[in-house]
Amino acid sequence: MSKTRLEAFSDGVLAVAITLLVLDLHLGPGEPGGLLAQLVAAWPSFAAYIVSFLVIGVIWVNHHAVVRLVEVVDRTLLFWNLVLLMFVTALPFTTATLAAALAGGDAGDLRVAAVLYGGAMTGVAVAFTVLHARITAQLLVSGDMDAATRRRSLLRFGAGTILYPIITVLGLFSVVAMLLALAALSLYYLFNQTGTPESGRVPARPPSGDSEQP
Amino acid sequence: MSKTRLEAFSDGVLAVAITLLVLDLHLGPGEPGGLLAQLVAAWPSFAAYIVSFLVIGVIWVNHHAVVRLVEVVDRTLLFWNLVLLMFVTALPFTTATLAAALAGGDAGDLRVAAVLYGGAMTGVAVAFTVLHARITAQLLVSGDMDAATRRRSLLRFGAGTILYPIITVLGLFSVVAMLLALAALSLYYLFNQTGTPESGRVPARPPSGDSEQP
Amino acid sequence: MSKTRLEAFSDGVLAVAITLLVLDLHLGPGEPGGLLAQLVAAWPSFAAYIVSFLVIGVIWVNHHAVVRLVEVVDRTLLFWNLVLLMFVTALPFTTATLAAALAGGDAGDLRVAAVLYGGAMTGVAVAFTVLHARITAQLLVSGDMDAATRRRSLLRFGAGTILYPIITVLGLFSVVAMLLALAALSLYYLFNQTGTPESGRVPARPPSGDSEQP
Amino acid sequence: MSKTRLEAFSDGVLAVAITLLVLDLHLGPGEPGGLLAQLVAAWPSFAAYIVSFLVIGVIWVNHHAVVRLVEVVDRTLLFWNLVLLMFVTALPFTTATLAAALAGGDAGDLRVAAVLYGGAMTGVAVAFTVLHARITAQLLVSGDMDAATRRRSLLRFGAGTILYPIITVLGLFSVVAMLLALAALSLYYLFNQTGTPESGRVPARPPSGDSEQP
Repeated sequence: MSKTRLEAFSDGVLAVAITLLVLDLHLGPGEPGGLLAQLVAAWPSFAAYIVSFLVIGVIWVNHHAVVRLVEVVDRTLLFWNLVLLMFVTALPFTTATLAAALAGGDAGDLRVAAVLYGGAMTGVAVAFTVLHARITAQLLVSGDMDAATRRRSLLRFGAGTILYPIITVLGLFSVVAMLLALAALSLYYLFNQTGTPESGRVPARPPSGDSEQP
Repeated sequence: MSKTRLEAFSDGVLAVAITLLVLDLHLGPGEPGGLLAQLVAAWPSFAAYIVSFLVIGVIWVNHHAVVRLVEVVDRTLLFWNLVLLMFVTALPFTTATLAAALAGGDAGDLRVAAVLYGGAMTGVAVAFTVLHARITAQLLVSGDMDAATRRRSLLRFGAGTILYPIITVLGLFSVVAMLLALAALSLYYLFNQTGTPESGRVPARPPSGDSEQP
Repeated sequence: MSKTRLEAFSDGVLAVAITLLVLDLHLGPGEPGGLLAQLVAAWPSFAAYIVSFLVIGVIWVNHHAVVRLVEVVDRTLLFWNLVLLMFVTALPFTTATLAAALAGGDAGDLRVAAVLYGGAMTGVAVAFTVLHARITAQLLVSGDMDAATRRRSLLRFGAGTILYPIITVLGLFSVVAMLLALAALSLYYLFNQTGTPESGRVPARPPSGDSEQP
Repeated sequence: MSKTRLEAFSDGVLAVAITLLVLDLHLGPGEPGGLLAQLVAAWPSFAAYIVSFLVIGVIWVNHHAVVRLVEVVDRTLLFWNLVLLMFVTALPFTTATLAAALAGGDAGDLRVAAVLYGGAMTGVAVAFTVLHARITAQLLVSGDMDAATRRRSLLRFGAGTILYPIITVLGLFSVVAMLLALAALSLYYLFNQTGTPESGRVPARPPSGDSEQP
């Protein structure tokens, strides 16, 4: 399995999943009130759309940053990549469910929807962490990353991962706060953690190594 | 982040968005009248389908022309590309809403739908303008474009961008006129502004430079 | 515009369109009778699904064969490629409409649906013919194809194109015959007209020329 | 037809099909009971989603392993690849039908849905076997695989293929057992049969040959 085809398939799934989010931006044909009122009432759909779009967009950026480090595409890696994609493709569903609960207004349903939404995000984060640990373990074996760098890298990645369950718990109290926290976290990762060689999550090489990737 | 993968992901999102437009060409199963009458009554869906298809098709062509100039894929660029794609993927929704308002015939709803439709187009245009300004700023720094060329290029791009809010305002008076203007503008951009080295929006090099791209 | 990105975008649109066909294979939740009866009653959906799948699959094969000959991706070519894709992405809609009319059984609706279905196929064929004429005209100018070869090639392509309106007229009398004819034509094109250098629709070079494409 | 474009199109179709599975994870808006009760009642949709996601994911992995061996993309190969993709794109439909039958609880419907679901899987397996036989026949002719290796390879592939109709029959007695068996089989194929040169289904070269693929 070549890295190129792994990336192409993952990109395809992410591109479809991010675009399918729009299918839940659909106003019912027979709803009462003018179109403006309907659009205003549909604000949860728009808010959830924007946050989920950002989240999947940042998953795409980070996926590239992590896969770029892969040296051998083995079966375990393919498995965890599928698990990651499975949680990502569930996001249009959890997004629609959250938007419906926000529009419905039942407090109990809202908490369930928040756990479902945050749970899928947490699933993405956990699969990412396993992928990252697996890939950096490869680098350790091949001598392309030393143990200290890997430990620092795992700690930084793990710290990010633990934020998702915390945000999910936050969603039990306020879904709006959960959405804002997720949007802020995504923007932070987009601007600060895209894995460029100088400052990214995982240095492509230990400081003493020579660059092999042009 | 390589330019190739940025293009592949953007192409994927644009390909899915342009194809999802067809999902709103769906006749209700229990509607009265024969199929011919239903198809005739559904003309707004067909008109909106054709215009949105053209618009997304031209976005794809222009996206390629702009991204071709990118020298470094940095985080700001990824962010604005995501914003651009977010507005593009919203187009199947704004298209369906406009078609429903046209079929419904309520004058107030029609104005709201026109603003929504034109607003998303304007969002695309603004994100494109920011991307373009950002990319030409890179070229300025690297010495691959001189300041005068960049100013002319920004002016030409900005002039195009200002047409979208104007067309949106036109939609308040006549949605059909708005659709015709958008189709005409798209065809104009398709045939005259695809960024070929000789006459496109953004010359790949200043006149005095030597061509590096075959 | 590179040929690679033209192919990638077209492949993406064709892949999404061919997969969206499945969305119309959906049994209504509250229909009477057991599941087996429902599946049997849904035979028009399955028949239309298989034929449309074959047709889009063969469009993909032929698209590749035609685009392979392109020497310069110019604006006219991009326009006609968009027109081609617009008709292709309409196929899930015309397929669903035909299946609904077959299930409904009204003779008048069936004729309307047959014309709509065959009309979209004819639109695809016409756009293909224009693309083909345009591309071979490029080859004529560049000296990579002589006039006699081009004339023969246009005639063969045109002959195929004229079959689609004829099949559409056939659909006015029998939709089943139309579907069988389309399936047969697709299979014929798949096995005999995929444009391989030796025997395809358009020889990559005139017999006297030297091969430039590996 | 280049192998690259065959892979790109197949990857696109598989990526869309695997992502469309999410569209059936949709809770009805007016159903009784709280959201939690609805989610619990929808367990068949989640179970079918996970199994079908795994199955399509493994099809993607195996598709790559088989196509990697292709030496000439001929028409017969394109035909069988289309047949394979046709069965794969039907999986979102058979998955949704199975989930609905599981939720409905009618024993007769459940058996019909199990046969439909297992039947589509069997169709995928048969198309894969034909593709594999065809490709290894090419290798035999070109001398890149000897007859004994091919016979062993066909036997191993055929043994896998025969499991799908057996699992389908199992589904007549217990759909849950069928889903578990399919998930187990997919995981087995994912971890043990991805066609790596050392231990995969089909060695790229006979032991005596020299490696040509890096």
